[in-house]
Amino acid sequence: MAARKRMPGEFVAIARYFAPLATHPGAFGLKDDLAWLAPRARRRLVLKTDAIVVGVHTLPRDPPDLIARKALRVNLSDLAGKGASPLGYMLALVLPGNTTEAWLARFAAGLAADQKLFGVPLLGGDLTRTPGPPTIAITALGEAPPGQPLLRAGAKRDDAVFVSGTIGDAALGLLALRGKLAALPERHRRFLAWRYHLPAPRLALGRAIAPLASAAMDISDGLVGDLGHICAASDCGAEIDLAAIPASPAAKAAGDRHALRRITGGDDYELLFTAPATAEAGLRAAARKAGVPITRIGHIVARPGVRVLAPGGGAIPLKSRGWQHF
Amino acid sequence: MAARKRMPGEFVAIARYFAPLATHPGAFGLKDDLAWLAPRARRRLVLKTDAIVVGVHTLPRDPPDLIARKALRVNLSDLAGKGASPLGYMLALVLPGNTTEAWLARFAAGLAADQKLFGVPLLGGDLTRTPGPPTIAITALGEAPPGQPLLRAGAKRDDAVFVSGTIGDAALGLLALRGKLAALPERHRRFLAWRYHLPAPRLALGRAIAPLASAAMDISDGLVGDLGHICAASDCGAEIDLAAIPASPAAKAAGDRHALRRITGGDDYELLFTAPATAEAGLRAAARKAGVPITRIGHIVARPGVRVLAPGGGAIPLKSRGWQHF
Repeated sequence: MAARKRMPGEFVAIARYFAPLATHPGAFGLKDDLAWLAPRARRRLVLKTDAIVVGVHTLPRDPPDLIARKALRVNLSDLAGKGASPLGYMLALVLPGNTTEAWLARFAAGLAADQKLFGVPLLGGDLTRTPGPPTIAITALGEAPPGQPLLRAGAKRDDAVFVSGTIGDAALGLLALRGKLAALPERHRRFLAWRYHLPAPRLALGRAIAPLASAAMDISDGLVGDLGHICAASDCGAEIDLAAIPASPAAKAAGDRHALRRITGGDDYELLFTAPATAEAGLRAAARKAGVPITRIGHIVARPGVRVLAPGGGAIPLKSRGWQHF
Repeated sequence: MAARKRMPGEFVAIARYFAPLATHPGAFGLKDDLAWLAPRARRRLVLKTDAIVVGVHTLPRDPPDLIARKALRVNLSDLAGKGASPLGYMLALVLPGNTTEAWLARFAAGLAADQKLFGVPLLGGDLTRTPGPPTIAITALGEAPPGQPLLRAGAKRDDAVFVSGTIGDAALGLLALRGKLAALPERHRRFLAWRYHLPAPRLALGRAIAPLASAAMDISDGLVGDLGHICAASDCGAEIDLAAIPASPAAKAAGDRHALRRITGGDDYELLFTAPATAEAGLRAAARKAGVPITRIGHIVARPGVRVLAPGGGAIPLKSRGWQHF
C-alpha cells in the first residue's frame, strides 16, 4: 500500500519534493530557508498573497495536483491583472499529520507542471502541520515596468469596460462538480469543471493591455463584485449589458436561468479593465497578439454602483454582489 | 456581550483592522489587493515565509496579540539571521468562522505594536476562512547590502561558533506555561514564558555581524539541530561546550536536568553564527554596539555532525537533535 504511506519527515519531504522546484539561484536549493533576489534596476516589484484552504476554496476531494496548480494560478492571475511578469513564489504549506506521501508527490507534481508552463520558480517556503485541512498560502512576486502602476483606481467617466475570455464558467463548473447540471452534455460539464479547477492566468494579455488601460484587476470574487471594487477605488460607477457579457458554449448551453450566477459567482480569473474608448483599437490589437479574446461589456458612469442592464434596458436587481469569506 | 460578537465581513474587517496597518505607500491602503515596491538600486531582496498554526506553534489559548507578534517576529528573526533589514510583510490570515471581533481586534493590535517597534509595514495579504484552527502565514521582505549573501553555507574548519543572548529560555517557557516548573519562583516562570511568547528578532546584531561572519542563521528548531544545518550546508562539523552555552538566570534556576532540553528545544530566535577566530574582537565590538551579548560556544571541525562536550570533555549522546514538524 505504497500510496497510503505517510509522508516523510519535514526535511526529507522538502529535499525530495520541493528542492527540485527551487530552480532559482536565490533559493539555494532550499538549503538556506530564505530566498535572495537581485531586482532589475528601475523595475517595480509586485507582490500578491492568496491562501487556498482545501474544502473551502476547493472541493474536499479535489486532486492534489489541481489544488497546487490552482493555488499558484490564482496568485499569477493577480499579477496578470497588474501587467506584471512573475519572478517566483514563496509557499507556506500547512498539512494534516495524516497526509500521505502520494498526496504530497502529486501536489509537488502539479506545482512542477505549472512552474514550467509559466516560468515561475519556487523561491522558498515553510512546511508545517495542522489539525485542520490542508492550507496553501502562496506569495507570488512579479516585476512591472517603471512608471505609473496599473491599479483598480484610475477608471474615468465614459471609459469602456472590458473583460477577457468568457465569464461564469467556473461558477457553473462548481455546480457541475456538485452534480447540479446533470441535464448538460458531459463535454460541457467537463469544460466547466476544468475552468473551475484550472484557471488560466492572463499574463500575456495583462502585459499587453497595461500601457493602454486606466484601471485593471483579475476577476476572482465575481464580475459584478469586482467591477464594484474598481468603481469604489475610482470613485465612479459602471453600467454593463447582461447580453454583452461573453459566455462559453457550455455556459450558453446551461441556459439563461444561470445568468446571474455567472456574473456574481467567483473563480473566473479573467481580466477586467477599463480604458478610454479611443484605446479600443489598440486594446483589440494587443489582445490578438496575446491570443486571448476581449469583450467590451459596458462603460463607466459618474453615479456610484454597478448596474447590470437587461436586454430591454432596465437595471436587474442583484441580491449577492460577489463572494466574501466572512 | 460585545466581546463575543462575530467578526465583521471580509471587506469591513480588512478596512477596519488591516488597512490602518498598511502604511507603506505601495500597499495603497489595501484597496488594490496587491503591493508594489521599488527596491533600492543594487540592494538584494531577502524573503522569508513562516506559518504559525494556533495550538501547534502556540498554545491553544495564547492571547491573539501575542500570536500576531510571534508570527511576525519569527519571520523578522530569519531576516536578522541574514543581516537584512525589514521592508514590509505580506499576511495570509486564515480564520475559523466563529472568530470574534474582539479576537481580531487584539490580533491587529499586536501587529500594530510590533510594526511600530520594528518599522515594518503591512504590504498586503489575504483574509479567508477555515474549519481548522487560526493559521497565520507571513512572508517578510527585507533588503541586504550588495555583495555576497550571508548563508548557512560558509563555515570553515577552526571557525569559532557564537550565539546571541541566552539559549533555551523558550523551551523552558513552554514547560512553565504547561505548569511543569511549579517549583521555580514566579518571576523566573514569567520571564521564561515571555521568552516563549515574544521572541526578540536580533535585527541590529544581524546587520552588525554580517560583514564579519562566515555563516549565520537564527535558531528556531533548537541550537543543536540548527548548528547541524549550518554544518550540513558547510560540509563540516562542530564541537560545542555545554558549559559555555549562555543561560539566563531563570534557566539556571530551573537546574541542570533541563540542560539538554535547553539546547534541543525550539523557539530561541537568537542568532547562531560562525567566524574566523581573528574576527572575534570585531564581533564583540559589533555586539556591544547592537546592545546584544554574544557568547563563543565552540568551534567548527572537519568531522561531520555536532558534538556537545560535557564539562569533563566527553561527547554527550543526544536522542533528539531538534524540532521537525512531521
